Amino acid sequence: MTDLRQRPGAAGLFTGLSAFPLTPLRDDTRLRDDAVDEAALAGLVERLVDAGVDSVTALGSTGSYAYLTGAERARVARLAVEHADGVPVFVGVGDLRTSRVLAHVEGAETAGAAGILLAPMTYQPLTDDDVFELFRTVTEHTELPVIVYDNPGTTRFGFTVDLYARIAQLPGIASIKIPGVPADPAQARDRVAAIRAAVGEHVTIGVSGDAFAATGLNAGCDAWYSVVGGTLPSPALTITRAAQEGRAADAAAESDRLAPLWELFAECGGSLRVVAAVAEHLGLAPHRCLPLPIQGLDDAQRTAVAEVVDELALG
Amino acid sequence: MTDLRQRPGAAGLFTGLSAFPLTPLRDDTRLRDDAVDEAALAGLVERLVDAGVDSVTALGSTGSYAYLTGAERARVARLAVEHADGVPVFVGVGDLRTSRVLAHVEGAETAGAAGILLAPMTYQPLTDDDVFELFRTVTEHTELPVIVYDNPGTTRFGFTVDLYARIAQLPGIASIKIPGVPADPAQARDRVAAIRAAVGEHVTIGVSGDAFAATGLNAGCDAWYSVVGGTLPSPALTITRAAQEGRAADAAAESDRLAPLWELFAECGGSLRVVAAVAEHLGLAPHRCLPLPIQGLDDAQRTAVAEVVDELALG
Repeated sequence: MTDLRQRPGAAGLFTGLSAFPLTPLRDDTRLRDDAVDEAALAGLVERLVDAGVDSVTALGSTGSYAYLTGAERARVARLAVEHADGVPVFVGVGDLRTSRVLAHVEGAETAGAAGILLAPMTYQPLTDDDVFELFRTVTEHTELPVIVYDNPGTTRFGFTVDLYARIAQLPGIASIKIPGVPADPAQARDRVAAIRAAVGEHVTIGVSGDAFAATGLNAGCDAWYSVVGGTLPSPALTITRAAQEGRAADAAAESDRLAPLWELFAECGGSLRVVAAVAEHLGLAPHRCLPLPIQGLDDAQRTAVAEVVDELALG
Repeated sequence: MTDLRQRPGAAGLFTGLSAFPLTPLRDDTRLRDDAVDEAALAGLVERLVDAGVDSVTALGSTGSYAYLTGAERARVARLAVEHADGVPVFVGVGDLRTSRVLAHVEGAETAGAAGILLAPMTYQPLTDDDVFELFRTVTEHTELPVIVYDNPGTTRFGFTVDLYARIAQLPGIASIKIPGVPADPAQARDRVAAIRAAVGEHVTIGVSGDAFAATGLNAGCDAWYSVVGGTLPSPALTITRAAQEGRAADAAAESDRLAPLWELFAECGGSLRVVAAVAEHLGLAPHRCLPLPIQGLDDAQRTAVAEVVDELALG
């Protein structure tokens, strides 16, 4: 296995566990005023910092960035930095329109973000050149380092490794958040090595798709951009530290222990609805904290989530 | 063939040619202030009314609704109604978040819209129940009639006929905009008949996907929700009036004449980029009028578009 700590850049900002907190909403007035629950958000960020995560990524997909106004996003970014106690905060700035992305970048800069996370959101499908120019424009407009956010399940834009390589040459590109790795460890190592060869040593590679994280870290990924780590940081840190210290079997064992959670992700249409239900079960977020029209889990699913949280002692 | 004029409801508001104008943007300051070109928008709407379209749908996908702020959308809706000279204007109100949709509905009401068009935009994939509840909420909050907008190429949400039927039972549902029909006329009739049986006679069916329009209208669709009709209303009206008058062969012949345009749609990643290039070629919109990151066609594609427009005398 690669010793990540000996690779140039691997000890930097965009390594280890980056935890993605929810942005809980609270609806007091039947939809006319669904607003960010600022106290719940602050509590989630403080929980992550107390647990010892390496960074916090506010306004990731888990943080519902795509659903929030510019003013809400600027406020969430400020709150996250204020409550992070010096731990680096990355801020998601994606939007459908480039001029809006630039406005969100300004909000992140003002808040004191340590980096920005940019996904190519789509309504009209985008070409590779559209996406390259988006990243070029953003890197021209900010000094903040940029995480390239590849999340085809939400953006419906599929990056090729060639496009990773083109974008990685732009100034300020610091990391790539990949959507997952093959389940087979050898294939996962080949995949990470191929991306590394394409993007260069100056760009870290972060795995997402929580069920793939131990495999991805063991295969040489520098970081884990983690949904589950934003609500349940302790088991995510157990996996991350084991992989970083070369204890691949320990990382895999902790991931295997969480298999009932990964199964719920698969059964319930992805990680977001499940993690929101976990946070609600643990009293970390108000009931039905996701932005409508996302209704979240039904009662039977919530019961299943609560049982897994309690049985695995995840709270 | 069904005589559309003898079906209950078929002579109503949600029939015939509904033309979808672009919302042209103009970028005077390198992205920091890309703004709606209000004069160009007004000119496009007046062009449609002068041609005799049955309705104008502002802020459809062609009108880039998904890219615009609430304030921009309210302004576009007002301008469209002001320049429509009494022709009914429908207004797209889709957004990722239900509370934002309701704000856009208010903007449409204030503008004097005759109806609203609602697509279930997605970032996180939505369930059928999420989408049903979105439509339920919106119909509870407005007296305006609602067009259900099924456009999986942009929203990535796929409606089933069963979901059409559930939503059609909500108060105020007036029409369904379907993404296309099978190319075979008999299969197209079967498809339209199956949807009609599911949604009931009180809901009109409008075809979109311009290349399918003649087949769809000949197969019994009540309306054509038309991209090309928003910039080139004359040939769209030729097709629509022929189909409405039972001259199916004439409708098909005019659609066949436009085949080079449909081929450009297929080659250039959809209708929007091509229609924007047509409008720019004809001086109806400023150069590069689409919201970035959508760059629009390259120079070679623009030349091909101009040749088709000139050869077919579409200007």
